[in-house]
Amino acid sequence: MAPRHGRLELHQVGVTEIKKPISVRRADRTVTLSASFGVSVDLPAARKGSDLSRNAELLAELVDRTAHAPVESLEAACQSIARELLVRHPYASESRARASADYFLPRGIAPDRESLEDYRLLAEARAFRNGDASVRTRRRIGAEAVGMTACPCAMENVRERLSGEYPALRSAELQGLPMITHNQRNRTRLTFELDEGVEVEADEIIAAIEAAQSSPTFAILKRGDEARLVLNAHRNPKFVEDVVRDLLASIPQRFPMLPDGVEVIAETTSEESIHKYNVVAEHRTTVGQLRAGAAA
Amino acid sequence: MAPRHGRLELHQVGVTEIKKPISVRRADRTVTLSASFGVSVDLPAARKGSDLSRNAELLAELVDRTAHAPVESLEAACQSIARELLVRHPYASESRARASADYFLPRGIAPDRESLEDYRLLAEARAFRNGDASVRTRRRIGAEAVGMTACPCAMENVRERLSGEYPALRSAELQGLPMITHNQRNRTRLTFELDEGVEVEADEIIAAIEAAQSSPTFAILKRGDEARLVLNAHRNPKFVEDVVRDLLASIPQRFPMLPDGVEVIAETTSEESIHKYNVVAEHRTTVGQLRAGAAA
Amino acid sequence: MAPRHGRLELHQVGVTEIKKPISVRRADRTVTLSASFGVSVDLPAARKGSDLSRNAELLAELVDRTAHAPVESLEAACQSIARELLVRHPYASESRARASADYFLPRGIAPDRESLEDYRLLAEARAFRNGDASVRTRRRIGAEAVGMTACPCAMENVRERLSGEYPALRSAELQGLPMITHNQRNRTRLTFELDEGVEVEADEIIAAIEAAQSSPTFAILKRGDEARLVLNAHRNPKFVEDVVRDLLASIPQRFPMLPDGVEVIAETTSEESIHKYNVVAEHRTTVGQLRAGAAA
Amino acid sequence: MAPRHGRLELHQVGVTEIKKPISVRRADRTVTLSASFGVSVDLPAARKGSDLSRNAELLAELVDRTAHAPVESLEAACQSIARELLVRHPYASESRARASADYFLPRGIAPDRESLEDYRLLAEARAFRNGDASVRTRRRIGAEAVGMTACPCAMENVRERLSGEYPALRSAELQGLPMITHNQRNRTRLTFELDEGVEVEADEIIAAIEAAQSSPTFAILKRGDEARLVLNAHRNPKFVEDVVRDLLASIPQRFPMLPDGVEVIAETTSEESIHKYNVVAEHRTTVGQLRAGAAA
Repeated sequence: MAPRHGRLELHQVGVTEIKKPISVRRADRTVTLSASFGVSVDLPAARKGSDLSRNAELLAELVDRTAHAPVESLEAACQSIARELLVRHPYASESRARASADYFLPRGIAPDRESLEDYRLLAEARAFRNGDASVRTRRRIGAEAVGMTACPCAMENVRERLSGEYPALRSAELQGLPMITHNQRNRTRLTFELDEGVEVEADEIIAAIEAAQSSPTFAILKRGDEARLVLNAHRNPKFVEDVVRDLLASIPQRFPMLPDGVEVIAETTSEESIHKYNVVAEHRTTVGQLRAGAAA
Repeated sequence: MAPRHGRLELHQVGVTEIKKPISVRRADRTVTLSASFGVSVDLPAARKGSDLSRNAELLAELVDRTAHAPVESLEAACQSIARELLVRHPYASESRARASADYFLPRGIAPDRESLEDYRLLAEARAFRNGDASVRTRRRIGAEAVGMTACPCAMENVRERLSGEYPALRSAELQGLPMITHNQRNRTRLTFELDEGVEVEADEIIAAIEAAQSSPTFAILKRGDEARLVLNAHRNPKFVEDVVRDLLASIPQRFPMLPDGVEVIAETTSEESIHKYNVVAEHRTTVGQLRAGAAA
Repeated sequence: MAPRHGRLELHQVGVTEIKKPISVRRADRTVTLSASFGVSVDLPAARKGSDLSRNAELLAELVDRTAHAPVESLEAACQSIARELLVRHPYASESRARASADYFLPRGIAPDRESLEDYRLLAEARAFRNGDASVRTRRRIGAEAVGMTACPCAMENVRERLSGEYPALRSAELQGLPMITHNQRNRTRLTFELDEGVEVEADEIIAAIEAAQSSPTFAILKRGDEARLVLNAHRNPKFVEDVVRDLLASIPQRFPMLPDGVEVIAETTSEESIHKYNVVAEHRTTVGQLRAGAAA
Repeated sequence: MAPRHGRLELHQVGVTEIKKPISVRRADRTVTLSASFGVSVDLPAARKGSDLSRNAELLAELVDRTAHAPVESLEAACQSIARELLVRHPYASESRARASADYFLPRGIAPDRESLEDYRLLAEARAFRNGDASVRTRRRIGAEAVGMTACPCAMENVRERLSGEYPALRSAELQGLPMITHNQRNRTRLTFELDEGVEVEADEIIAAIEAAQSSPTFAILKRGDEARLVLNAHRNPKFVEDVVRDLLASIPQRFPMLPDGVEVIAETTSEESIHKYNVVAEHRTTVGQLRAGAAA
């Protein structure tokens, strides 16, 4: 029996977890990402169903063909998909396309130790039908990188405690000796939300994240390298609070071309070695506010 | 080297994935849920770090003691935790406590087929420090239930196609014969966001979801029962759009005591049997808007 | 304090979840897979630690270079890695390399509906040092495909029940009319374990799985196609037991070149639409036993 | 069309991911676990299908009633279920029941810092029909605990490197000063496989694991406690190889009552802070072999 009620509009109707390989053009090469897509549109009250089969067709057309004609970026693909969603669902006023994929960049603690490290790309585009039938879009471009944090607080407490046991540690010669602390995997994500036409390069986002952690991490570490990385992290101890603040503070200088209105979201999780739970920090602001803060 | 910038405030600093057993009082019994908690507060610019160890202490105090003194509900526990977060982090202006847990209710297709079916509870409370140092809270109470949807569109197409092959299907005697279609697991979540003092019972949320799917599902089905359940679902075919609309439309009658301002979020996912991907629908509205729609 | 005990040998010491892009040569093209690797060796009692940094180096050397020199297959890469592990860990007598990756093949319910469907590849190689210092290897080649099953039992019960309501269904003209039943996503995996030198093509494994389910599933289905796929599945109803048996029974004919000694593992899971839980079936046998069964 | 082949027997047919609350009696209290069950039996060639609905009925009967009559342990419940599976599937010659659940124990770095820490229980029972129609069973009892490891190798390299920078570190007074290294979450699992009638207590398994890691971890750590835990872990640095060896070596003394024939499996994973991947070690042996090793 049909419910006796006026039909509601719906904010989102779509498909999720469509997996597709997508070929993306980089400066010096083409890379193929194994991406997971989700797309949706709104549904007005007057319409019973969104023709969902159109979504899979559209993804097949726009994504499968990148095997022969690579796209600029995952977010450029999302933007094309979001625009095309409004063409194929003419009743809809808004659309959204999301994608995430593993991504690889060459990295090494030294030039002869390079290998491909894995990251995660996150892209989203939304398209809005204007009153005059033109369409405007907004995009999100994000990336996630795993690195390392070393805790500054436990380090200070250890110094105190060890100085009791080993009074020699208080000697002038040992000022600045880095002390033991807990350190752990840190997973940090930086996302920009911006208008069409403004570009942010994923590789730059990843570089910004890695600079804000206590240290980046590497697949290949020979024994001397481990000590170097570990010392580097302990000379740069950070709370999750510091990771988010330092990451956001670096944005005005790292991304000078971004307009003030661009939104920025920084999120970080440290998988604490001394606890079974995670600690997290998160902030959302704008490039303009970050510039004002830097000038202060 | 410390970054040379004015320190930023942060929206969220906290801990996640703290697992705890929590004892909750129901009408006729006490149940122990195995819950996962996340708590956070904001951090003003003036403060370097949030003392995160207080969060785990607070959870241990408030949750571990429910073994002897059960709480009213998972959301009541979140509310106490959110309030207490503001006491223990006196610099913070907002706090948030979230919890999720498996939950079980007795269900059966017939009275002698009852067993415990599993659901998911989702609770959240936020506390805000007012100008006069008093605190107000908002809560989210949600639940997720797995049921079944049968597709109305493929059913009509099958009817047409089979009527070509079997003209007898067009006879008057077979009007209304339910036709084959694809059916699948459907996962639907309903969440209320409301002010302190307003209560919604999780069992009622689950009942509302199960009534909006093509059919609830059951662990124990003897052979005749399978046919009964399958026929029931095929006589009640639904798109994901229908699940969300029917669920929202049922709210004014099912929850007559809720104030108009209560926010409602309905989300559904069908794990399509004919595709490798999922289809989804989602809407957010208020109880007041739903009442206005029902009256229209 | 070090434990006072004779040191134990260990069966497996290694690294897991190393993600790498790997380029694989197919008949007509090169595909890049986003793979997750795990490698390990045994550790004799005499040795304190396995030098784990060699594993990441080796993976970087062997896998990163496929960007320029694609390998034959994921399992060929695992075999090279397993052999090289014994070279770099000279104390070890056995090694193991595993990889899994999303994989895509063009598929469609009709030629003009083709798109890339996603599957999962699973490969493993083990290398054993012989007494004469030569090395022999064993390999596992497997794939997983999502398709659909329709339940034969509920179908018969529905037929009986509906024939009571609609006596016309018993007429001769409607013999063979497919009846409604529950249908759902089915996930089936077929794995071969074989000696070096014997080859199995992943695309053939996937084709065998799809033929054993009630129906394969497709991303692109226009409305008429949905009915066709749904009817096809309901004319081919299968229990999980049938999926495993039919899949194994098809092997002698589909893989005539495989020696009798090759081991075969078939595993299937149906994500039941009428229950919240899954049903599973699994069997392990040899190609020789399957041939004997087929001849019986 | 039915496949023309002699029907195969199948090793496993069953259901998985049935979630149920189960009440277990402990020395001083009753605890309710939120468990996930999987059960299966073999299927002879002569039989078309395993009547899977019996499995859910049986679980409902045996598990739901523990709310009023708690069982001894998760593995005792699995054993009853495995036996009953052979009663309800009279054609089957073997059965298997598995369960896993979050589990909580009070722990603290000091008596006034106690809170509930979370662990994972893993139980399995298999039942075999003997020639004389009697039934014998085997059981697996396992647990997983998260703790911490600190790397001994990086610690030595750091010592060397820092001694170059700070020659005072070589002074006699600073012999034994613990040095910085990478430390991380370690997840270790210990499982016993034993005949009916032999008992192992899960709390003892967890205690054994925690003693074999560099340090257990705790939810509540005030600032001084963090230093204490971190120092403890750095004075007890361990490779994954050491964790498995020390854990196995502790078994003869910790579990003196176990017969020699009991099988033991130890598995450990360190989520390396300096890498994006995990390192693992694993060994399977018998209590008898461990005793022989301890005596050597």
